Amino acid sequence: MPAEPEMAPTGGPRPKRGILERLDQGEVVIGDGSFLITLEKRGYVKAGLWTPEAVVEHPDAVRQLHMEFLRAGSNVMQTFTFSASEDSMDSKWEEVNSAACDLAKEVAGKGDALVAGGICQSSMYKYHKDEARIKKLFRLQLEVFARKNVDFLIAEYFEHVEEAVWAVEVLKELGKPVAVTMCIGPEGDMHGVTPGGCAVQLAKAGADIIGVNCRFGPRTSLQTLCFMKQGLGAVGLSPHLMVQPLGFHTPDCGKGGFVDLPEYPFGLEPRVATRWDIQKYAREAYNLGVRYIGGCCGFEPYHIRAIAEELAPERGFLPPASEKHGSWGSALNMHTKPWIRARARREYWENLLPASGRPFCPSLSKPDV
Amino acid sequence: MPAEPEMAPTGGPRPKRGILERLDQGEVVIGDGSFLITLEKRGYVKAGLWTPEAVVEHPDAVRQLHMEFLRAGSNVMQTFTFSASEDSMDSKWEEVNSAACDLAKEVAGKGDALVAGGICQSSMYKYHKDEARIKKLFRLQLEVFARKNVDFLIAEYFEHVEEAVWAVEVLKELGKPVAVTMCIGPEGDMHGVTPGGCAVQLAKAGADIIGVNCRFGPRTSLQTLCFMKQGLGAVGLSPHLMVQPLGFHTPDCGKGGFVDLPEYPFGLEPRVATRWDIQKYAREAYNLGVRYIGGCCGFEPYHIRAIAEELAPERGFLPPASEKHGSWGSALNMHTKPWIRARARREYWENLLPASGRPFCPSLSKPDV
Amino acid sequence: MPAEPEMAPTGGPRPKRGILERLDQGEVVIGDGSFLITLEKRGYVKAGLWTPEAVVEHPDAVRQLHMEFLRAGSNVMQTFTFSASEDSMDSKWEEVNSAACDLAKEVAGKGDALVAGGICQSSMYKYHKDEARIKKLFRLQLEVFARKNVDFLIAEYFEHVEEAVWAVEVLKELGKPVAVTMCIGPEGDMHGVTPGGCAVQLAKAGADIIGVNCRFGPRTSLQTLCFMKQGLGAVGLSPHLMVQPLGFHTPDCGKGGFVDLPEYPFGLEPRVATRWDIQKYAREAYNLGVRYIGGCCGFEPYHIRAIAEELAPERGFLPPASEKHGSWGSALNMHTKPWIRARARREYWENLLPASGRPFCPSLSKPDV
Amino acid sequence: MPAEPEMAPTGGPRPKRGILERLDQGEVVIGDGSFLITLEKRGYVKAGLWTPEAVVEHPDAVRQLHMEFLRAGSNVMQTFTFSASEDSMDSKWEEVNSAACDLAKEVAGKGDALVAGGICQSSMYKYHKDEARIKKLFRLQLEVFARKNVDFLIAEYFEHVEEAVWAVEVLKELGKPVAVTMCIGPEGDMHGVTPGGCAVQLAKAGADIIGVNCRFGPRTSLQTLCFMKQGLGAVGLSPHLMVQPLGFHTPDCGKGGFVDLPEYPFGLEPRVATRWDIQKYAREAYNLGVRYIGGCCGFEPYHIRAIAEELAPERGFLPPASEKHGSWGSALNMHTKPWIRARARREYWENLLPASGRPFCPSLSKPDV
Repeated sequence: MPAEPEMAPTGGPRPKRGILERLDQGEVVIGDGSFLITLEKRGYVKAGLWTPEAVVEHPDAVRQLHMEFLRAGSNVMQTFTFSASEDSMDSKWEEVNSAACDLAKEVAGKGDALVAGGICQSSMYKYHKDEARIKKLFRLQLEVFARKNVDFLIAEYFEHVEEAVWAVEVLKELGKPVAVTMCIGPEGDMHGVTPGGCAVQLAKAGADIIGVNCRFGPRTSLQTLCFMKQGLGAVGLSPHLMVQPLGFHTPDCGKGGFVDLPEYPFGLEPRVATRWDIQKYAREAYNLGVRYIGGCCGFEPYHIRAIAEELAPERGFLPPASEKHGSWGSALNMHTKPWIRARARREYWENLLPASGRPFCPSLSKPDV
Repeated sequence: MPAEPEMAPTGGPRPKRGILERLDQGEVVIGDGSFLITLEKRGYVKAGLWTPEAVVEHPDAVRQLHMEFLRAGSNVMQTFTFSASEDSMDSKWEEVNSAACDLAKEVAGKGDALVAGGICQSSMYKYHKDEARIKKLFRLQLEVFARKNVDFLIAEYFEHVEEAVWAVEVLKELGKPVAVTMCIGPEGDMHGVTPGGCAVQLAKAGADIIGVNCRFGPRTSLQTLCFMKQGLGAVGLSPHLMVQPLGFHTPDCGKGGFVDLPEYPFGLEPRVATRWDIQKYAREAYNLGVRYIGGCCGFEPYHIRAIAEELAPERGFLPPASEKHGSWGSALNMHTKPWIRARARREYWENLLPASGRPFCPSLSKPDV
Repeated sequence: MPAEPEMAPTGGPRPKRGILERLDQGEVVIGDGSFLITLEKRGYVKAGLWTPEAVVEHPDAVRQLHMEFLRAGSNVMQTFTFSASEDSMDSKWEEVNSAACDLAKEVAGKGDALVAGGICQSSMYKYHKDEARIKKLFRLQLEVFARKNVDFLIAEYFEHVEEAVWAVEVLKELGKPVAVTMCIGPEGDMHGVTPGGCAVQLAKAGADIIGVNCRFGPRTSLQTLCFMKQGLGAVGLSPHLMVQPLGFHTPDCGKGGFVDLPEYPFGLEPRVATRWDIQKYAREAYNLGVRYIGGCCGFEPYHIRAIAEELAPERGFLPPASEKHGSWGSALNMHTKPWIRARARREYWENLLPASGRPFCPSLSKPDV
Repeated sequence: MPAEPEMAPTGGPRPKRGILERLDQGEVVIGDGSFLITLEKRGYVKAGLWTPEAVVEHPDAVRQLHMEFLRAGSNVMQTFTFSASEDSMDSKWEEVNSAACDLAKEVAGKGDALVAGGICQSSMYKYHKDEARIKKLFRLQLEVFARKNVDFLIAEYFEHVEEAVWAVEVLKELGKPVAVTMCIGPEGDMHGVTPGGCAVQLAKAGADIIGVNCRFGPRTSLQTLCFMKQGLGAVGLSPHLMVQPLGFHTPDCGKGGFVDLPEYPFGLEPRVATRWDIQKYAREAYNLGVRYIGGCCGFEPYHIRAIAEELAPERGFLPPASEKHGSWGSALNMHTKPWIRARARREYWENLLPASGRPFCPSLSKPDV
């Protein structure tokens, strides 16, 4: 197997610094993107189960996706350990967490990226709000992350702030930086706690980085984050902010997010964001004061690259994959057809209202709940 | 690197038979899907240039995509040599063609797939209809394919039947089966030759398999193929038929196809077909008598799997990647939310009219030309 | 000129009772519909000016429209005196108010309808919040209404509750029932007073009937009315409620309502409500406790008839114009084509999602402000 | 009843000239618009029956609509006698035809308009192609038109050219000019005769003016007329051309036209053309060489005015109703809000893509047949 060349950000290699070191200096940290939805389409994850046994069964496929995000500009290789706790994966959980760490580390070592160990909400909480048992589940995964010496930790995809607080409390035990993101929208968590209320509780529990991931599109997620920021500000707190939304447009979501839309999960195609949508999102996130900016389900490598390209002026460099991408379509300049060359400019793509090619379909749906 | 397991179609390994042997027996041959557009999104192909130097620069990425199509059910690993002729790639062309053959062969060897050497229209024809020079270009690539001993040959993406005939004439020199597909729509080639007229010329030139690829969505491409079949039938010819359309809905295309749509190439997302759209396409292609069924730009691995799943009753087996996919969404049966479990059935997905989430966008566009 | 026959509601003539007598007994009172927008399309009102000189210039056209609303089921003939105050019409104002009263009375006399004298916000308030001068303007119109002995009074289309209160205070001087409607949406008046806050101030000023008219579509207006009702309930007030929304769908309105939509006023056609949309609206208004139900701009006679047909079970009779309308399309039963006969049923029209025939247009717009 | 003032085209009164006199001199003749659909919405025509008993029952309503079209610029008052033959109306037919002529004449006398007696296809033809009986039906109506001395005759809404030819043959007996329009689209008549073929047969039967009316929107109807013109030209014929399309957008129609669309007849609102759509249509019709330009179902008075305004430069005058309409929205210039004043210009309205306000609806439908 021909070796992938070491990659460094344009401008030469720099020493790898910690997540808080970067954020404290106001630097932009680019997260990674979609694993479950993307690997489902590549044939390695089962929709419905949504578990990451691919790290053991098909490590090449997972490594390749990590590589693509790294090339696209991600500064974080998050271990592919979503739902990889004992309650979802039985005996396989440990092998999966361990292999996922190895893959993330291997790829992170090829560029300027940190490794983040990731946990998510338990499947148990909905039925038994048993703090001790749930914390034990979190702790099991944490032990693997400790052994593998990840750089920091992310607790993500929490519908209930109570459980998210428990996760933060466990993750803090390791002494590494802790990020936490909920999968809530502007209406707040499933128990009716507002985004601002959630953020305050998480900050008080000790989380260093706070935000949202998944369930809602870029625009809706930034609205939620705006409410979080207001809530934090009202009590004088200012943790770092983080956003990793869907790569889908979901203005028609209800409180439960995209899983309640009739298109979930096998008819979401017309909702996929363009790279230009994502550049707009990245700019708005930045303007809102968010500095950890990434994506979740539906965020393909080129979407991550779009974040890196939009914020290149602030960061001072482009990601490796931009060697294959003229910014704002400039590479179309060499096309033989003049009307396609005319598309090689920012105004064109910024103002394009892309058609769906589906005149028999509506533009919005009503959520099932 | 953990080895990818050998894969065989469900039902046990079978001897690898030639393309014509399969088609002559009425067997369905599943093509592969999108390389340029897909690898652009993964960060390895430059939009605008659309050339395959990734086979040399990033062989892992190309190998991985081949693997995904193989798992999805493709019976053909087409060499990633689109535009890899001397007039587009200068001195790099030979190394690229050679490496592309090696990658295709390596992956084909892991399953029931044949290797097809692929050429496409020259960039020269538009300016100089110089038969000798253009045939020489084709012959250079053919020499590599001969050396690498590919199983058969595909000449694809021709806008003018005259140049396609030249390609067929060159490829026939090797004595292997020859497929040829044009990138035309129902209005015919750029000189006004009808689809039926094109097909007849290609059959008379000796092509074994005839059809269309790229430029138009599934529905439009089948319309073109229908005209081809009628034209062939009118003169008593019946070569094998082949279709590899876009994975995008393009009912609003003009004669030039999707490149003239304002969304090309960076705003096509809302047009991406769902897996259910592709199942419908596969069934219609089959009913039309087409037996070589694949995809072109925008056809992701899960789209190829959808062809294989739709035609599993006729073929008698599912592709390897179906282990990660309950047909017609049946894997949603295990979801905790009852309204999502209710989506685990064919009627649901067959009748879904997926929303774009883009109420400020139109559903159709006017082509630029 | 052949005489229009006297009309009486099905079930025989009944004594004409006052507006409060009807509402106090829980009876549904059906308002009338669109004059300005409708007569603009018929060629008698100038868009931009939107003043009612047609009552003098083209009385036949105005009389005919009153007749159509009466036949459709309206119980109120509102004088066509919108903007007919001295500040908008100069010296013509008195003749116009007088002629408008005569026309309304003439037609009201042909059926079970009351005459309501109508005033609206001044054009002066925006520049000079001069209570004395503005009240004087209102009082001038009121003097005509007093002389013509109208049955009750309506102050409508107020953006600011302060001016609406002034209007109520003036109108109360006559000792007849007073209705007042603001042209606000769920976000409240232009000074930031909530719908509930507005309603409470108007009730305290002595208005007998309170609600909204114009500027927002049926669904949005009912949302506003819901907030008004909540606000009133919170302080123990329960005046009669009234709603006269646009006949256009405007889910994309901002605070300023439909005038800020880019389609206003000459591109609103695709937004026009169907009769079935209006039946749904009438039912929802009724369920919310509203008993004075009518329409404003865009409400054609058949929309008013749709209110009367939807609420026929509660009212015990159909309007005269229903002799020309089988409810829920039942008259299609006699069509020669079976697939059109199949449309002669409630389920068909209730569930129809009508297409725009405009695939190059979006479904929503962004307001200009 | 105050008298409607006599109206004359701007530029002073002119002698009333015959239809052929006008057309032979290349003058534009503006037809009238929708009676059935419009009077159904006003409460005087029953959907499903679609017969014109309103001329007897509610003459004021019919007279008013004639007046509106006259003011809007119509040069033809067509008798409201659609389907008013003996086979559809039994014994009432004669009274209805007679009253319709009186109304048309009364209003035509107030301006520069001619009276056209109108007949349409029989309900019998579909079942019995009995030439003698059907011609007798046509002749009965013709006798009334002769007695009332109408200016010319129109045979309209024919699905089959054979029956249209019979109609022309009967109407020619009176010795007055004869116009004939079919309700076909680009695919031709119900027996498969092409538009060109139909036009040639009608011209050979002696029709002076030939074209289409109803069933299809403006754009589709002009396509049909284009085919008619080509067919006529191919055999050296050049009768006058006439077009009276729907006021609805119907790009999704099949051969049967709008009656087969699921929205027919009670959900067509989102398809209603704007005045700007109609200006575009008028210009295209004129450029195609059509000089008799009007409308059919869905064409409201302001749509007719739009034809007259678009072609005012050619005709040299505006219609009376333009006193209430600043061309291209210029009357918005006096609006108090600057962003609405900004709409007072041609570019704005010409380029507006009006939203439907219906994000849950599709933009196109599939015809039921």
